[in-house]
Amino acid sequence: MNKHISEQFDTELSELRDLLMEMGGLVERQIQQSCQALISHDIALAEATRAIDKEVNRYEIEIDERVINIIARRQPTASDLRMVICIMKASADLERIGDESDRIAKMAIGMGRQAFPQDQYKHIRTLSEWVARMVGDALDAFARNDAEAALAVISADRQVDEEYRVAVRKVLTDLREEPEHAERSINTLWTARALERIGDHAKNIGEQIVFQVRGEDVRHSAKPPSSSGAVD
Amino acid sequence: MNKHISEQFDTELSELRDLLMEMGGLVERQIQQSCQALISHDIALAEATRAIDKEVNRYEIEIDERVINIIARRQPTASDLRMVICIMKASADLERIGDESDRIAKMAIGMGRQAFPQDQYKHIRTLSEWVARMVGDALDAFARNDAEAALAVISADRQVDEEYRVAVRKVLTDLREEPEHAERSINTLWTARALERIGDHAKNIGEQIVFQVRGEDVRHSAKPPSSSGAVD
Repeated sequence: MNKHISEQFDTELSELRDLLMEMGGLVERQIQQSCQALISHDIALAEATRAIDKEVNRYEIEIDERVINIIARRQPTASDLRMVICIMKASADLERIGDESDRIAKMAIGMGRQAFPQDQYKHIRTLSEWVARMVGDALDAFARNDAEAALAVISADRQVDEEYRVAVRKVLTDLREEPEHAERSINTLWTARALERIGDHAKNIGEQIVFQVRGEDVRHSAKPPSSSGAVD
Repeated sequence: MNKHISEQFDTELSELRDLLMEMGGLVERQIQQSCQALISHDIALAEATRAIDKEVNRYEIEIDERVINIIARRQPTASDLRMVICIMKASADLERIGDESDRIAKMAIGMGRQAFPQDQYKHIRTLSEWVARMVGDALDAFARNDAEAALAVISADRQVDEEYRVAVRKVLTDLREEPEHAERSINTLWTARALERIGDHAKNIGEQIVFQVRGEDVRHSAKPPSSSGAVD
């Protein structure tokens, strides 16, 4: 009987982990498609991407329900408890990544087929590739309970922040030189900001994974935690 | 003996609630002081405000530790479990409100004594008053387990979003008309955005309180939940 209960519990935990991975897959698609839609003025793609956000929101609610249910019925051990709390927090971050991507998709729709100077896209493209990779790496680290890989995600955020600052300086120059295009420059700015925030959320997920695997809270450390690698 | 344990548990819960309220008080000060520092070019005040953020971060870690400890040792009932989860999530939102305020304080330091056109402050002042009130109201609703008051906080977010859009349109006009002041216009934009995000986080806290009190998840509802009042 005990074995039966513990097998059931293992199944519940593994389903919960699968849900988070599925949610993460949707969010990765949101990032890629929303930036693609913005860059290629593809309104249909932007609209399809916006539909994903509703699904992502449902995942967050489903995951929360299951976590609370598991805690209430299973009285998990310290290590399992850390895992389900990590999943709940990671799902909140994924949901916010979804929100930021959704803002980009909304902007793509608002801008329509309006032309955009190609050089403004360069930073957006770079930032979107970097943060999509951070999110993917964070999900891989979660799937493999790999604290080292999670620390690499945390470190990668500094490069994203640096690229973001470069993008903002470029927009400021454009604003002074071409004030007649203020609106599209502001849209570049919002997009860069949304991507920078996605990087922050991926970093948060990395911190949660380190906490889950090592039981060590690395948030708000004065120094960045030691890591074996950077974004690339 | 059982009575003793249950009294201890009540003390732990009430200490946890107190911690969240203290953290909330610090965050309210961050919002008010950072905006005050920006508006009155008060660098010393901005620096003092930045110091609060470190304290706020420590509260988040302390609250998380206590929540996990309570869940692991006390196996709380469904209703107590909802309460401690609500506290953990609310503390994450408070921490992010602290981050947004900290961005404003950092900007106040970066701008130094640089003059700012008075009319750009109008929206910032209004927004900061509104979101500070939202955060205060959310904390009151939490302290009184008042779902109606929490729903009013959720509704108030729409007015904040509307005022934010007005502020953004004003900045766009300024950017076109006075491109030489692009940087300070962008700073107004960042500040408005940070305040709008603070409103979002206060709304999240309101949603958590409704969940705690009623056991009902009102996030991502298509329609806003019914409520007796708005921001004012």
